[in-house]
Amino acid sequence: MEQTVQRLSEQNSLINMCHMRWRGEPLPSDDDVKRIITLCRRLIFPGFFGDSEVSRYNIVYHVGLACEELQRLLTNQIMAGLCFRVSCGEELDLYEIEREASRKAEEFIKSLPDLRVMLSADVKATFLGDPAAESTEEVIFCYPGIKATCNYRIAHKLVELGVPVIPRMISEQAHGETGIDIHPGAVIGHSFTIDHGTGVVVGATAIIGNNVKLYQGVTLGARSFATDEGGNPIKGIPRHPIIGDNVVIYSNATVLGRITIGKNATIGGNLWVTEDVAEGEKLVQARPDNILRFKQ
Amino acid sequence: MEQTVQRLSEQNSLINMCHMRWRGEPLPSDDDVKRIITLCRRLIFPGFFGDSEVSRYNIVYHVGLACEELQRLLTNQIMAGLCFRVSCGEELDLYEIEREASRKAEEFIKSLPDLRVMLSADVKATFLGDPAAESTEEVIFCYPGIKATCNYRIAHKLVELGVPVIPRMISEQAHGETGIDIHPGAVIGHSFTIDHGTGVVVGATAIIGNNVKLYQGVTLGARSFATDEGGNPIKGIPRHPIIGDNVVIYSNATVLGRITIGKNATIGGNLWVTEDVAEGEKLVQARPDNILRFKQ
Amino acid sequence: MEQTVQRLSEQNSLINMCHMRWRGEPLPSDDDVKRIITLCRRLIFPGFFGDSEVSRYNIVYHVGLACEELQRLLTNQIMAGLCFRVSCGEELDLYEIEREASRKAEEFIKSLPDLRVMLSADVKATFLGDPAAESTEEVIFCYPGIKATCNYRIAHKLVELGVPVIPRMISEQAHGETGIDIHPGAVIGHSFTIDHGTGVVVGATAIIGNNVKLYQGVTLGARSFATDEGGNPIKGIPRHPIIGDNVVIYSNATVLGRITIGKNATIGGNLWVTEDVAEGEKLVQARPDNILRFKQ
Amino acid sequence: MEQTVQRLSEQNSLINMCHMRWRGEPLPSDDDVKRIITLCRRLIFPGFFGDSEVSRYNIVYHVGLACEELQRLLTNQIMAGLCFRVSCGEELDLYEIEREASRKAEEFIKSLPDLRVMLSADVKATFLGDPAAESTEEVIFCYPGIKATCNYRIAHKLVELGVPVIPRMISEQAHGETGIDIHPGAVIGHSFTIDHGTGVVVGATAIIGNNVKLYQGVTLGARSFATDEGGNPIKGIPRHPIIGDNVVIYSNATVLGRITIGKNATIGGNLWVTEDVAEGEKLVQARPDNILRFKQ
Amino acid sequence: MEQTVQRLSEQNSLINMCHMRWRGEPLPSDDDVKRIITLCRRLIFPGFFGDSEVSRYNIVYHVGLACEELQRLLTNQIMAGLCFRVSCGEELDLYEIEREASRKAEEFIKSLPDLRVMLSADVKATFLGDPAAESTEEVIFCYPGIKATCNYRIAHKLVELGVPVIPRMISEQAHGETGIDIHPGAVIGHSFTIDHGTGVVVGATAIIGNNVKLYQGVTLGARSFATDEGGNPIKGIPRHPIIGDNVVIYSNATVLGRITIGKNATIGGNLWVTEDVAEGEKLVQARPDNILRFKQ
Amino acid sequence: MEQTVQRLSEQNSLINMCHMRWRGEPLPSDDDVKRIITLCRRLIFPGFFGDSEVSRYNIVYHVGLACEELQRLLTNQIMAGLCFRVSCGEELDLYEIEREASRKAEEFIKSLPDLRVMLSADVKATFLGDPAAESTEEVIFCYPGIKATCNYRIAHKLVELGVPVIPRMISEQAHGETGIDIHPGAVIGHSFTIDHGTGVVVGATAIIGNNVKLYQGVTLGARSFATDEGGNPIKGIPRHPIIGDNVVIYSNATVLGRITIGKNATIGGNLWVTEDVAEGEKLVQARPDNILRFKQ
Repeated sequence: MEQTVQRLSEQNSLINMCHMRWRGEPLPSDDDVKRIITLCRRLIFPGFFGDSEVSRYNIVYHVGLACEELQRLLTNQIMAGLCFRVSCGEELDLYEIEREASRKAEEFIKSLPDLRVMLSADVKATFLGDPAAESTEEVIFCYPGIKATCNYRIAHKLVELGVPVIPRMISEQAHGETGIDIHPGAVIGHSFTIDHGTGVVVGATAIIGNNVKLYQGVTLGARSFATDEGGNPIKGIPRHPIIGDNVVIYSNATVLGRITIGKNATIGGNLWVTEDVAEGEKLVQARPDNILRFKQ
Repeated sequence: MEQTVQRLSEQNSLINMCHMRWRGEPLPSDDDVKRIITLCRRLIFPGFFGDSEVSRYNIVYHVGLACEELQRLLTNQIMAGLCFRVSCGEELDLYEIEREASRKAEEFIKSLPDLRVMLSADVKATFLGDPAAESTEEVIFCYPGIKATCNYRIAHKLVELGVPVIPRMISEQAHGETGIDIHPGAVIGHSFTIDHGTGVVVGATAIIGNNVKLYQGVTLGARSFATDEGGNPIKGIPRHPIIGDNVVIYSNATVLGRITIGKNATIGGNLWVTEDVAEGEKLVQARPDNILRFKQ
Repeated sequence: MEQTVQRLSEQNSLINMCHMRWRGEPLPSDDDVKRIITLCRRLIFPGFFGDSEVSRYNIVYHVGLACEELQRLLTNQIMAGLCFRVSCGEELDLYEIEREASRKAEEFIKSLPDLRVMLSADVKATFLGDPAAESTEEVIFCYPGIKATCNYRIAHKLVELGVPVIPRMISEQAHGETGIDIHPGAVIGHSFTIDHGTGVVVGATAIIGNNVKLYQGVTLGARSFATDEGGNPIKGIPRHPIIGDNVVIYSNATVLGRITIGKNATIGGNLWVTEDVAEGEKLVQARPDNILRFKQ
Repeated sequence: MEQTVQRLSEQNSLINMCHMRWRGEPLPSDDDVKRIITLCRRLIFPGFFGDSEVSRYNIVYHVGLACEELQRLLTNQIMAGLCFRVSCGEELDLYEIEREASRKAEEFIKSLPDLRVMLSADVKATFLGDPAAESTEEVIFCYPGIKATCNYRIAHKLVELGVPVIPRMISEQAHGETGIDIHPGAVIGHSFTIDHGTGVVVGATAIIGNNVKLYQGVTLGARSFATDEGGNPIKGIPRHPIIGDNVVIYSNATVLGRITIGKNATIGGNLWVTEDVAEGEKLVQARPDNILRFKQ
Repeated sequence: MEQTVQRLSEQNSLINMCHMRWRGEPLPSDDDVKRIITLCRRLIFPGFFGDSEVSRYNIVYHVGLACEELQRLLTNQIMAGLCFRVSCGEELDLYEIEREASRKAEEFIKSLPDLRVMLSADVKATFLGDPAAESTEEVIFCYPGIKATCNYRIAHKLVELGVPVIPRMISEQAHGETGIDIHPGAVIGHSFTIDHGTGVVVGATAIIGNNVKLYQGVTLGARSFATDEGGNPIKGIPRHPIIGDNVVIYSNATVLGRITIGKNATIGGNLWVTEDVAEGEKLVQARPDNILRFKQ
Repeated sequence: MEQTVQRLSEQNSLINMCHMRWRGEPLPSDDDVKRIITLCRRLIFPGFFGDSEVSRYNIVYHVGLACEELQRLLTNQIMAGLCFRVSCGEELDLYEIEREASRKAEEFIKSLPDLRVMLSADVKATFLGDPAAESTEEVIFCYPGIKATCNYRIAHKLVELGVPVIPRMISEQAHGETGIDIHPGAVIGHSFTIDHGTGVVVGATAIIGNNVKLYQGVTLGARSFATDEGGNPIKGIPRHPIIGDNVVIYSNATVLGRITIGKNATIGGNLWVTEDVAEGEKLVQARPDNILRFKQ
């Protein structure tokens, strides 16, 4: 075994596979990110996620302490994200990075009341769009779509603030929890709804309007991507769909490429869509043609 | 930050977004629901889920204590569910609600031997239906389909007992754990099998016969739903399929609306089915017609 | 309740539903398997999964202790797996089984440097294949495909060493965590990539070449399976596809049966493929034919 | 073993040895009492006992939440104490008891600012009285005398509020932690100091003036106690010493019975005192008389 | 640092300072011993120590499971104790040792009902002997004397069964918890009482009759011990006092050597006793002679 | 309650009672100090304190990681100690303080092999001095004297390195655990033994030679202390005894003031000694004179 230990510790074998710190900077931590998500959920939906003794009288204490803890953890993780991006040899001014991280964390916390307004609209739209939902409280408690959208809105805000890596970790935690994979770079309007949700994929450059509803298994993906002369993919080119207001996309439909789905359009289930859809158009699978029926 | 704390604590901004107690009633708790599921699994499958010292001699002690703890936790969560439903101004007779909750919990525990019989048939059907399964024990240990079906059967029993919210939380925990989303209101016969399972959706008013098998990604969904004059969805209308005995539905097929799939029918993978299928009929995708092949 | 306790403890009702030990052998334990996975991930990717204080100077200590703990836990769980397979009445020579388990655990640990080389290629391929990926470190931290592939490679090695049950538990933990279900019996070449991944299913006898890429929802499944005269499925018959080098299969495509997808082929999204595809061939959905468009 | 289980479960063998609930009342809980002590220490000495992120800006949130949690836990434990006292057959009006407990808990919390003033004087006196103490902060952090005095002052306040059992549990926790055993019924003035403290015993009816200092091993005990005709001790008779202001009692001295130690008196170490000591008197051991010295 | 790591790992520097296993035997574990004590306390005093949901109906399940767990843990720790004694080179038949340990654990569990009877008498005597005690329940909950006596009775039973080391660990846990240090080898009759208790020491060969009461700081010690020609102490020679029935020894008295304190005798506080005391005799400190009083 | 929250948060009421940070420096933490003690114990006595899988082959990994963790935690707590001393208004150069703390932590770790040598002698002396001790391993496992001496030697080393506060926290943890209170400033030679130990007090300026043995309840204290004109005690004046080599002091003896107990002297139990004792002298209590005996 000693030999294996040596082989596993060799510097060469560790290239790109080992994550070390140069100068005492913090490291991205799944546990801290999980705690950050919990704190955000508690601040946005007080009383729902584990801090169940909230009352009219003590809510300010709960909110106050959660903000304090969030400021501290988030500063730390933003700092980790900022250092993560830096390549190995580069000098870091940790003190300056910490101040920048702290400012970004503050900015984020200031935006929480607006995030609550956005999520309130998402909850309301989900409740109105599902005959099985009995109350908005049930929606907040039980609907994976709300959890994934909440993580997305948190992560997207951090993207806007220029935070690397951490937003992706936040969206992956929702992906693991719900099977819904929304890239934090996507842009999504208000009153967004996802039903059931397992298998939903929303790509990094997708743009989604207001009042859009996606069912389980819907992909808003890229068709292909440009590569540079070295064969490496070119980053940052818009390659995912633009979805207009009030669009509904049914389960397992796949919408690919930088196409536009016009306002009020409807995409039927299981469809494969790679071209623009006009405003108000409705696409459904041509049923009889592609199914063979026979007696067993 | 003080200002943000104030904004996040304002009563107006909290409407529908905050969950408080009026009168000391318990609150639905994800942790307690998780524990309830663990206790049920241990009672139904002793020795498999973490209480691994079960022996012929001590099983009665394990079962006895688990029943006691289950009675206590379940009473509490049923009570939480019953209060959850009540609208804000209404008076609650907590003492009466507690007695009702306790009776329902007792009823539930009495049904556990029957739930074990049902799940025993599910396990056996899964084992017989999968060449990769090496033993029924492996099925219980490793198959997400069994975990999801177990949660469903627990949750459905609670629906029958008139418990609000808690059943939905139970099925969402299976959804998060397995990617299988079975609404607790669905009615499912014995010897039910789900293979792989990620992405399966079974809607609230679906009715499934005996000995049915679903593969990953199968949706038994609604086509659309009626709305009242206010545009709100009308609750409780049957809108999901009825599946006959011995039906097999292959991966990623979508079956929508209050249609009937007759006994012994087979639905091929990736199909989109919105009309009745007769007994014994077999539907498969018309392969050559809708695929373009070309050399790259 | 006493009556229910009695019913739940009756030997007859427990047949096939209860897991007991005969002679002090260890039992398969989800918690131990989880810890084994964590240790393997830390040994393969030091510094990424929770042991974040790794440095050039202490890595050998981290690796040394993790190997020690892995040897102990893995011996124990392999032993549990070996006993699991044994039918009830059979005599066990626990001492001999423990020695065999210890040898297999040692073999496994010896293979860790090779597993790191394999996973290094998977990470690199994932990074090169996704324009949204910003660094290989982000890929290791955040990509569920890497987590699932890592679990698969661990589990497959154990299958090669003849360990029952435990590999399946390892792959199911990745399934629960990522929605990606790769059977540990499958054979997969180097530089394997899964994007997004929710809903991917790779069957027990599938063979996948080098440099293959799968998108979310892809199934490599069986069409049907042979049964013996008793109606039980015959185990071990090859029934899943063979995928050539450099093949790409887009989201939600279903490839079924012991067919061969030739080198460099491309399978479009949502396709249903049950026949061989030639080398270099490209299959896409015939778009216009099966979609009805109309104005709403 | 089954037989032993039976014997240990027999009702007769359990008389006075088993603690059960009749009607859903809470039970005294060491863990809850420990938490109550921690909360009180945090409220009295913010920032010292584990809530180390206290700042000028967030102290009100820390204090607010700690008060809320204290109110809840203390109500519960006071209720447990009130029910504990009740003999077995008696009827309990749990609702009324809960209201009484809640009122007492509120009273207690209202007294916390005064308790802080008292303990502030104790800290100052300890600092001035010990040349080894480097700061008042060190005193709060490290001196067992302060911990024991803090628990005593909490427990005594609860005695004044008529709470049974719980005060004794609080003082026993300090006894276990520090070796200092102060009965919560004792009456102790301000600026009280205990140095080192192990073995100190202060009896239930002791009365201690202001600015008193005790060293390790000092006992303020009873000489004997009256018994009734049945031979049972008569409760509540004053039987411990009265200690005047500014008295110092050195290590391992034993002061017994309802005697009075006058103001400004000093009791030397290891003395056995069972008679009154006048104001300003100083008692020391007559050294040469009772020691034999010889060469070994 | 690397150099220090080397020095701390050198075999020579580890002689007598490092505890390793030769052959897979268990090691004594403070945590397991703590759990064993908790289980014993729960079996002897159901409902008092953390298993507070005990009721008339479920007590048999609580007792049953606690016995099972105790059997397992105790077998393991007894085995550890038996191996501990063995010198380094010696061969161990672990299988035989395990059987022996299991038999001893069984014997111990069989004696639990008698231990409860003994402790019931101790509790009653403590209640009757302390005017400050309000109920026997308070005595069980709060009196350190009962905790220490309980640990002693458990440890002594294990000494009688020939278990090495573990009894001493059990008594040291009480010592740490209560400041009362009773060697498990001592012999103590029924209705034993310790008041306050901090600093009490009862030596390994002490013999204590029935109905004896000790106050805090009492030492029943050895005067000196014989050494062999090598200067090493000779083990096992009786060197501690014999205390008759109904003896009371007041606080901080020191009783040394193999002397006899006759029945019904009373030893006053702070006394130093090294010679026999007759039946019924009462010793008190000659007060006036050895105290100097003067005005300050 | 809101009012109480306000009162408890008022800046004035918090003077000297609240511990806040000015500039992000670490705070002394009981939990971190506890972990530091555990790591030191593991490094000095590998295999005894919770890391029970130590073997000849992996010891270097255990030692290496423990040193790493110790370096990190100790740097942090030393930094906390250094900042603790600083008065409120003063400027802190945190970066410089961290470097100083890191150097001190390194120095401390370098001294661990010597601490092991010292403690090895303490263990051996304890074993030889107690007929009840069955092995040196039992001494390390079970003897509170060794635990307290170990904490003392750790804390004293830190005092030598000029670390404030933390040494005192380390010795107080031993005090709470064992009832033995050794000030970290005391100077203690090799082969030091404490038997039973509860109530032992060793003052800050005491000097103890080699091969000294103390029994329970022994105080090496100060008689009185000088005060300055303001009545405050003058710090740092030698005021505790000097104990020569090979001295034995029996239980509950009190030795006070800057006196000298000569080599090879013996002090009997319960004595009160305030004057020098010559080399080789033996002091015992004059027994018959101060005890009254009478028949009851």
